[in-house]
Amino acid sequence: MPVNRQIKLAAKPVGMPKESDFRIEETAMPDPKDGQVLVKTTYLSVDPYMRGRITGVKTYADPVLPGDVMVGGVTGEVVKSNFAGLQTGDAVVGYWGWQNYAAVAGAGLQKLNPQMGPVSTALGILGMPGMTAYFGFLEICLPKAGETVVVSGAAGAVGSAVGQIAKIKGCHVVGIAGGDDKIDYITKELGFDDGFNYKTTTDYYGKLKELCPKGIDCYFDNVGGAITDAVLVLMNTFGRASICGQISQYNLEKPELGPRILGLVLVKQLKVEGFIISRWGARFGEGAQQMAQWLKEGKLKYHEDIIEGFENTPKAFIEMLGGKNLGKMLVKA
Amino acid sequence: MPVNRQIKLAAKPVGMPKESDFRIEETAMPDPKDGQVLVKTTYLSVDPYMRGRITGVKTYADPVLPGDVMVGGVTGEVVKSNFAGLQTGDAVVGYWGWQNYAAVAGAGLQKLNPQMGPVSTALGILGMPGMTAYFGFLEICLPKAGETVVVSGAAGAVGSAVGQIAKIKGCHVVGIAGGDDKIDYITKELGFDDGFNYKTTTDYYGKLKELCPKGIDCYFDNVGGAITDAVLVLMNTFGRASICGQISQYNLEKPELGPRILGLVLVKQLKVEGFIISRWGARFGEGAQQMAQWLKEGKLKYHEDIIEGFENTPKAFIEMLGGKNLGKMLVKA
Repeated sequence: MPVNRQIKLAAKPVGMPKESDFRIEETAMPDPKDGQVLVKTTYLSVDPYMRGRITGVKTYADPVLPGDVMVGGVTGEVVKSNFAGLQTGDAVVGYWGWQNYAAVAGAGLQKLNPQMGPVSTALGILGMPGMTAYFGFLEICLPKAGETVVVSGAAGAVGSAVGQIAKIKGCHVVGIAGGDDKIDYITKELGFDDGFNYKTTTDYYGKLKELCPKGIDCYFDNVGGAITDAVLVLMNTFGRASICGQISQYNLEKPELGPRILGLVLVKQLKVEGFIISRWGARFGEGAQQMAQWLKEGKLKYHEDIIEGFENTPKAFIEMLGGKNLGKMLVKA
Repeated sequence: MPVNRQIKLAAKPVGMPKESDFRIEETAMPDPKDGQVLVKTTYLSVDPYMRGRITGVKTYADPVLPGDVMVGGVTGEVVKSNFAGLQTGDAVVGYWGWQNYAAVAGAGLQKLNPQMGPVSTALGILGMPGMTAYFGFLEICLPKAGETVVVSGAAGAVGSAVGQIAKIKGCHVVGIAGGDDKIDYITKELGFDDGFNYKTTTDYYGKLKELCPKGIDCYFDNVGGAITDAVLVLMNTFGRASICGQISQYNLEKPELGPRILGLVLVKQLKVEGFIISRWGARFGEGAQQMAQWLKEGKLKYHEDIIEGFENTPKAFIEMLGGKNLGKMLVKA
């Protein structure tokens, strides 16, 4: 009898997660009920937000507790269908998490259109990270041509798309990332105007001032911490900051203090707004269509770092949190 | 020959300003040129924002430097007019600062309509502080009936108006202020639903949680610091914070660190926005009309703390920064 494999949270991580915080379990192959399909996982997504889901604290969603199957976006192939809207062989994307097979409600899955792009893009540029870039940047930063946009985490799945969208909108775009290779990638491959490696830069403020001589109008933040502190000081009146992630803070064993920012928010009349991408869920079709169009026109590029092997998903997750990836980090099951 | 008196900044204050940071100088009576009027000051406004103007640092406006006449809103009576739009005897409001007389461009003054309210209200409920409450709260917090609104600095000129406007809009309103008399005033006189004295409360978070059982949807912040830290933790998803002032921080000799807030901004999808009231300058007529209407209907009340004597303006300013006032602090020249 074929078995399923599931990756469960073994322990609430302290600081940076370790592989031993997860465990693989063999379980019986699930049997789809009426309205469900049996899916075989093809790609698994690892994303920064997952760190917040395993802290044991309810935030915008219930936490994943030790013993639970790890959450996450996944693509799969339908191998058995008891749902009228899907057939064996269909490629789908959903949220059944880190397991090789799952029996899931067909109504909760999205069937992929092969015309839009390869299956893996449903977890990247045309999926949650791409929509995060599209809506989180455009709806909150409201960029205007000629404005200066700074993106932190600029070589990741979301940041690399934000910078390119900002270029499409006619902005001057500066990216911040953790590696010279990443800066080369965003400037030479993706068309960012400039960027710097925060790991080899000591004076973020001075460097940003040099690269943003007209100040900063829009900030798309994936990292928080000292980088964000420096960006906010250089923002222009009526600047907009879209708070997408705070990855520099996720693995701290206790929260760090920082300079108070509300005095700057006041005198510069800044708007600082956070978001969770589900907010624009009803508009994903619109976003994916536009992104697919830009891909076809060559205005938008993406990179996927793909690790082979379902069992390597925790490792991929940990490497992504450590910033080892360029673009979207995925696991091929 | 009659003389004028001007109050100038004598020294950049360190920490809480002292009276010796200001000096009075006698100068020649100014002579209005063509297009100007000679005004005799009747009331002088002292406001928290002035602390930021005397730090020597350019923020949204040029700083007042030692030797400069202190800035500020004032009302006056026209005693000589070389401007077609104003006549001797007209009551006006303007920004000629801390001086008994000034020759100012008539076009930069606003003629007061005695039907709207007493002259002093042009510096308070119908002037800059009232407009700050009206636009800064309504335009940024976008309050909806039934929502919970928290106001810090709730017994001051701005905060006391914000809370009443929130009540008019059907909200549950909790005020934070520094004195039992102030809490009595806002709850018993002004109709706030509840409030607490932060000077005798140690656990702001616990107290707020008790008074805001449904969480906080809108926050109007005049103070910053530890009070604001506690409020943000209790905000609901899609909460809005209007950052009007940070008076707890203005007199610190060096900036204090605080908990980083962007993680909360992210998971709660908060919008945090700062403003300077000049932003809505073109709409003051609309705001003043609505506020005057509410005054007539008895839906809006105000209190003025008036100190007599032009020479006491620095003292009034310092007392206001120390929170000694209830409602609007004014000097009668």
